[in-house]
Amino acid sequence: MDTSVKNLIVEKIKSSKIGQVDFDNLPFGDVFTDHMMVCDYKNGSWGTPKIIPYQPLTLDPSARVFHYGQAVFEGMKAYKDDKGQAWLFRPDENFRRINKSCVRLAIPEFPEEYFFDSLKTLLRLDVEWIKPGEGNTLYVRPFVIATQPGVIAAPSEEYKFMIICSPAKSYYGGEVRVKIAEKFSRAADGGFGFAKAAGNYAGQFYPTKLAKEEGFQQIVWTDSSTHEYIEEAGTMNVFVRIGDKLLTCPTSDRILDGVTRKSVIALARDQGIEVEIRPIKVAELLDATKNNTLKEMFGSGTAAVINPIQGFGYKGDKYELPKVENSYASRFKKQLTDIQYNRSEDKYGWRYKI
Amino acid sequence: MDTSVKNLIVEKIKSSKIGQVDFDNLPFGDVFTDHMMVCDYKNGSWGTPKIIPYQPLTLDPSARVFHYGQAVFEGMKAYKDDKGQAWLFRPDENFRRINKSCVRLAIPEFPEEYFFDSLKTLLRLDVEWIKPGEGNTLYVRPFVIATQPGVIAAPSEEYKFMIICSPAKSYYGGEVRVKIAEKFSRAADGGFGFAKAAGNYAGQFYPTKLAKEEGFQQIVWTDSSTHEYIEEAGTMNVFVRIGDKLLTCPTSDRILDGVTRKSVIALARDQGIEVEIRPIKVAELLDATKNNTLKEMFGSGTAAVINPIQGFGYKGDKYELPKVENSYASRFKKQLTDIQYNRSEDKYGWRYKI
Ligand SMILES: Cc1ncc(COP(=O)(O)O)c(C=O)c1O
Ligand SMILES: Cc1ncc(COP(=O)(O)O)c(C=O)c1O
Repeated sequence: MDTSVKNLIVEKIKSSKIGQVDFDNLPFGDVFTDHMMVCDYKNGSWGTPKIIPYQPLTLDPSARVFHYGQAVFEGMKAYKDDKGQAWLFRPDENFRRINKSCVRLAIPEFPEEYFFDSLKTLLRLDVEWIKPGEGNTLYVRPFVIATQPGVIAAPSEEYKFMIICSPAKSYYGGEVRVKIAEKFSRAADGGFGFAKAAGNYAGQFYPTKLAKEEGFQQIVWTDSSTHEYIEEAGTMNVFVRIGDKLLTCPTSDRILDGVTRKSVIALARDQGIEVEIRPIKVAELLDATKNNTLKEMFGSGTAAVINPIQGFGYKGDKYELPKVENSYASRFKKQLTDIQYNRSEDKYGWRYKI
Repeated sequence: MDTSVKNLIVEKIKSSKIGQVDFDNLPFGDVFTDHMMVCDYKNGSWGTPKIIPYQPLTLDPSARVFHYGQAVFEGMKAYKDDKGQAWLFRPDENFRRINKSCVRLAIPEFPEEYFFDSLKTLLRLDVEWIKPGEGNTLYVRPFVIATQPGVIAAPSEEYKFMIICSPAKSYYGGEVRVKIAEKFSRAADGGFGFAKAAGNYAGQFYPTKLAKEEGFQQIVWTDSSTHEYIEEAGTMNVFVRIGDKLLTCPTSDRILDGVTRKSVIALARDQGIEVEIRPIKVAELLDATKNNTLKEMFGSGTAAVINPIQGFGYKGDKYELPKVENSYASRFKKQLTDIQYNRSEDKYGWRYKI
């Protein structure tokens, strides 16, 4: 793709704050780069995208995002290879998905050239913030918020599309044990769980807080109608390995169609691993624990890439997973990061040069 | 309740903008009074509430409300009687409910004295914005937003509790026909539909837009598991009159426990109207239409008070309701507004003097 950055306004910072940043001690999502992208929607169309110094937003207290949650976002990562070239991983998927989220939230879709042109320009400008070396990434957060003033529950006629970037190490540390949801739910059938909508996240905080008090780090959500089928975790899709088979549930209007998930499925199938995409009953997990056929569980998502799950809790009982040699989790994590950091061939065309 | 407004900072506007407002032509929720209340949560506690001139907010682009929808709100109305005294309607219910919403969204609860002290002070300061006369009200919007910067899906440690006020005429104009949801849903079992959380509203915009294209003004949501039972409308609870019986569905974790709803139930029972609070099947509505026993449907909510529903659509068919004499809808609307405007005895203690 060519960077014919027409109609893009760039206002550079006077002096970079990069010198003040301790790149070895970065709490996830806390530090932001020098610039950000802003594009305003007004009078029925998206205006000129602007790259400007990272700065606060000024909004009316009645802006709709505060009252009605009309907001969507994306999350992707930029990587730097050993030669100093920066890459994104499948940003076309994130672009498609944010527009899918927009449609469901009654937000006008964002033009493709605006997205890629401004994304590239922003990342090139802040390229020093992408550090080479395993685990170093730049987390890129496109998002859209409804800015029109007015406390009336109706779609906004004004929006801001923004991209902010945060240098990051890996997201989850330590061992992860999950609680399988028995009562609380993340998304409704016919709702918008498939969208990366702001409103899907805050509702998970309280149940997750309760789960943490029981010694779990995350919740694996189940379907809201019966709580019999596992769905996904807070910000990860979930995979289960039973015997040598890899299982994951189908995406639906309740479940986010994860980029990492679809990449894992492609990698697995290419390596002759049998992948079953079908509803997974909690009962099946429990049976597999008894039979000793439940070998692995892991989450997949941009932030953590692959996150092994050591155990789970369900109806008061706790289950530990065995330690396996040559786990699928570590294999896929290596294969994905090798592609992301340009250490291996990219036969799928997933790398996107910045 | 006494107004011992300790610890409240008041900064008044220099000159009021009230003279520029056309009170006869007020689009709902568009114009705001001279002052607003702001109270910040930081380092584990709520600070001193401040009444300050209505003004924009400045927030970091990574503030959690923009990304994770951690935000709740309330809606209530102030009325002025013919003697110039201003009143609120059951604000204790709104206070209790916003804290219930806070808990579910992992937001710290707000202290009762802070709420009532600052509310009273604010409304007394802006009392000229409450106009006497039927239909004139001041819509009062308390809300809480997560302000801590950081793109990590975890509860914020900083919040703003605010109250803004907007003079209003009645909310819905004209006839309302509703579409009964067949596919889309508003809330999940085990979710947070019962909370007045920002995230519950934006998800309704797109389905409502589609319903509008079919000639309806609102959607009546059904349960997300079977779509067989009616639940509530966008910002209203729903009542059905079959014969002379009044029906409304029970509140649940999917349904907002409306203040107007509980007031209607109390009024109805006191007048000897039989009220059944139980799940209502769509099939029952269809049967009642055939038998000519479906006499009325109406919504109840702060914005509209009582909103008669003239007809509904379901699976491609449209149903019109008969015009009834002495409708329950108009009776309850009159009784409620008589209490609200201090035109009748307040035997329930619902009026709250400002
Ligand atoms: C709810 C949810 N599920 C799954 C994922 C994983 O998606 P992806 O692999 O595209 O990051 C995410 C996002 O990161 C998410 O928010
Ligand atoms: C979803 C929903 N249902 C019902 C209502 C009615 O509640 P109340 O009568 O307290 O205004 C509202 C709010 O106004 C609402 O947002």
